[in-house]
Amino acid sequence: MAITVVGSVAFDTIETPAGKRERCLGGAATYFSLAASYFTDVRVIAVVGEDFGRRQEAVFQAHKVDTRGIERAPGKSFFWEGSYLENLNEAKTHNTELNVFAAFEPKIPEAYGDSEFLFLANIDPVLQRRVREAMPGVKLVAGDTMNYWIKDHRPALLEVLKGLDILLINDTETKMLAGNNNLVQAARGVLALGPKALVVKHGEYGATLFRAAASSDEAARTFRAPALPLEEVIDPTGAGDSFAGGFFGYLASQPEQTPAAWRSAMFYGSVMGSFACERFGTERLQQLTRQEIDKRFNLFRELTHLG
Amino acid sequence: MAITVVGSVAFDTIETPAGKRERCLGGAATYFSLAASYFTDVRVIAVVGEDFGRRQEAVFQAHKVDTRGIERAPGKSFFWEGSYLENLNEAKTHNTELNVFAAFEPKIPEAYGDSEFLFLANIDPVLQRRVREAMPGVKLVAGDTMNYWIKDHRPALLEVLKGLDILLINDTETKMLAGNNNLVQAARGVLALGPKALVVKHGEYGATLFRAAASSDEAARTFRAPALPLEEVIDPTGAGDSFAGGFFGYLASQPEQTPAAWRSAMFYGSVMGSFACERFGTERLQQLTRQEIDKRFNLFRELTHLG
Repeated sequence: MAITVVGSVAFDTIETPAGKRERCLGGAATYFSLAASYFTDVRVIAVVGEDFGRRQEAVFQAHKVDTRGIERAPGKSFFWEGSYLENLNEAKTHNTELNVFAAFEPKIPEAYGDSEFLFLANIDPVLQRRVREAMPGVKLVAGDTMNYWIKDHRPALLEVLKGLDILLINDTETKMLAGNNNLVQAARGVLALGPKALVVKHGEYGATLFRAAASSDEAARTFRAPALPLEEVIDPTGAGDSFAGGFFGYLASQPEQTPAAWRSAMFYGSVMGSFACERFGTERLQQLTRQEIDKRFNLFRELTHLG
Repeated sequence: MAITVVGSVAFDTIETPAGKRERCLGGAATYFSLAASYFTDVRVIAVVGEDFGRRQEAVFQAHKVDTRGIERAPGKSFFWEGSYLENLNEAKTHNTELNVFAAFEPKIPEAYGDSEFLFLANIDPVLQRRVREAMPGVKLVAGDTMNYWIKDHRPALLEVLKGLDILLINDTETKMLAGNNNLVQAARGVLALGPKALVVKHGEYGATLFRAAASSDEAARTFRAPALPLEEVIDPTGAGDSFAGGFFGYLASQPEQTPAAWRSAMFYGSVMGSFACERFGTERLQQLTRQEIDKRFNLFRELTHLG
């Protein structure tokens, strides 16, 4: 089933211990789309500037991602510059230019109307909510956010959370959102705000799924997926969005969202996150095969299963 | 098969957000012994002072831990005082009094001579090596160390590493020991120093087993065990030693150290580490049943297996 994703399509200048790339294609919606495209049809809603040309467009087309919802506006695309020189787990932002993104008004192509899955990537919660409300027919809605919205735009964010099936954020964001330093308690606090499920991304340590209390069986509600211990992290940019793409893409590809499907989705999320780190920007995500993905899925199983 | 463990038996004063305990029974060898005692026979080599009385002795006896190797010396036992008020993952040390431990000369009772398993808990590597050499008949030797020995006693530590089958340390120690900030590369660097296997403990994120390259099958050599997301961490003191006790105790209880046994051992390590955090000091470790342990083992399987 098709996923519509709304979020940023951007240019990133990234420096890591492995080197530097100038203005490579980035943005949460880009990473998400490419990762999810290996599992299901993806449709993007975003805004780009005049610097977004045929080469960038071709990246989406090569993965059959529907770009009719990517609006071209006068000016430049969202631009981010950051580095991971001291700590590969945390980006240091050197420059953020919102450019055309500052006035982003998501427009949903009519052709996207039958999407059953919706992913609200990390953007202003006011826009997330607007898109959510404009697509009342969707079956499952997942979303992301970040510390900025949690701290300074809480009321708008709380409105979004009420309408979410799945929220995907990291440890720090979970604790900040719940105002609680214990992860399990914080997860419960976040679930009380509306989302039926919470995926907490732990970076190099994997991710944990917490589901709201549909049963009293705690074990059935919590699931932990590993991350692959990577010998070389070239560039962690977009790993979280790639996780979301693999996770939600796999869920959307399944006839039913059974507990087993959720578990596999967590693994596929981790798999796509690990691939994303292996090259700069979206380079690795652009060149995968489903066979490679499933091979790594099996490696993750080997890595964690008692056998 | 019996394990001999050499290490500290101490008194700890611990403060955490959950409260404070004065002078509770602690020390690496204590946590290790109690955790391992649920799986196999354990024999301790340590030194204590006159403050170690019948009540402390009874804790070991209740778990059939052989204490003939615990020497009573004039003076006071090793004492540590620390808190975890700001960060439950890292102790802040307020006071360390070595006391009788300062002149510790491990003496190995003759009755320990047939131990097939030896655990060198975190003590001066010179003493670790002495015990190792005094027990040439052991089949499998595991050990722990810490940043202090890595930084300031490297030559002595390197000698110990050459004779180790398994080293159990945390992320920071692994990276420091190898002088490499990438965990996988650092693990390989540590394995090159001698140990045939390395268990890196990630605290609340579980632990990863790296085995030396006996085969070219990377997956068969790396294994990741989760930690239970705990709703309430009362006191993380001794969690790492409890992990080691569960891990090594289970391995020692098996007729053969098959790959499957190593995997289960990683899970039992995580299980015992999680129990240790649930109460102050060794309180929880003192009152477990094998049934509770296996129930949690199954919960860990549920938590991580695709099913």
